[in-house]
Amino acid sequence: MKVIVIGATGTIGTEVAKALIAKRHAVVAASRHGEVKVDLEDAASIRGLFDAVHDVDAVVCCAGDAAFKPFAELVDADYALGLRSKLMGQVTLARIAKDHLRDGGSITLTAGILAREPMVGSAGVSLVNAGLEGFTRAAALELPRRLRINVVSPPWVTETLIKFGMDRTLGQPAADVAKAYVAAVEGTQRGQVLDPRRLS
Amino acid sequence: MKVIVIGATGTIGTEVAKALIAKRHAVVAASRHGEVKVDLEDAASIRGLFDAVHDVDAVVCCAGDAAFKPFAELVDADYALGLRSKLMGQVTLARIAKDHLRDGGSITLTAGILAREPMVGSAGVSLVNAGLEGFTRAAALELPRRLRINVVSPPWVTETLIKFGMDRTLGQPAADVAKAYVAAVEGTQRGQVLDPRRLS
Repeated sequence: MKVIVIGATGTIGTEVAKALIAKRHAVVAASRHGEVKVDLEDAASIRGLFDAVHDVDAVVCCAGDAAFKPFAELVDADYALGLRSKLMGQVTLARIAKDHLRDGGSITLTAGILAREPMVGSAGVSLVNAGLEGFTRAAALELPRRLRINVVSPPWVTETLIKFGMDRTLGQPAADVAKAYVAAVEGTQRGQVLDPRRLS
Repeated sequence: MKVIVIGATGTIGTEVAKALIAKRHAVVAASRHGEVKVDLEDAASIRGLFDAVHDVDAVVCCAGDAAFKPFAELVDADYALGLRSKLMGQVTLARIAKDHLRDGGSITLTAGILAREPMVGSAGVSLVNAGLEGFTRAAALELPRRLRINVVSPPWVTETLIKFGMDRTLGQPAADVAKAYVAAVEGTQRGQVLDPRRLS
């Protein structure tokens, strides 16, 4: 399959691209600053991506920002970032991809387990992740041409926990998380929330 | 208890106010066009409400708009309405209420079962409702002064189904839905999603 991976230079995206290539898929690695450029916050840029890359079977998104900080410290701009980037960026991607993917193709978004397993500091992120899960379940009912949409809700990845000096045993290596994305691309599920901890 | 009910003139809000009064609570009925005015989309208006009404134990929100229409027909303005009104309107309410409610007080928001039980036409609403559920679970972990926050996720109410000529057996009367709000105000739960169908 021909698969666009958005956020392909990130911690998870790098492993998703690797895993798809290992399964002999043709990967188009897109990111904000890469060779194939896309900015999730800019619908025109997403449309430009699909104008430039044709005959795409699947798009995987491992990009999108949201602010993780204590509830009392979250300001309007923090919520706005999550809504504009991780939440509506991916919703916009789904809306545009549905008109461009090949029949039977798939859209795979990224939320996160904070949607259902919150922690101190996650109010803004939990809102965004849960919103993405709700959106995905609903949009799946209405996609045309046998298109599928699913969302992966990863735990913290070990690489990120190490980077921030947190307890690495709470996380899962990005290479394991990537397996959930490959399952979504190659599988038949629709409107599902995939938890990588239940796959590995 | 002294309870502000926002959206007190709506189908659900009317019954919530009635049910709280029947339990001998002092209800301040607020709405966009009522005697006590509040506009969820305007943070200054929410702050004004708490400046005008003192010694409040609980706030219940039964207000907020979002667009219900087929996924292919949802335009940017439809998503923006749901984010601005039902989603961030209630998040802003929670942020402001946490600084004004009496110790041990409570915040009760409204999402809807479309968060977890989508249907055709609900992509925009499911996103908003699920986002509210995720936010509530997380914010509950960080509220100061023993404050509580919960969210009621009602099914369609019978009155609305009748109004739109839909199958009324799919719904629950607003007076039954109201019991979940009373339970949230009088109870001890925190960060819970209350489904009125499981209470009546």
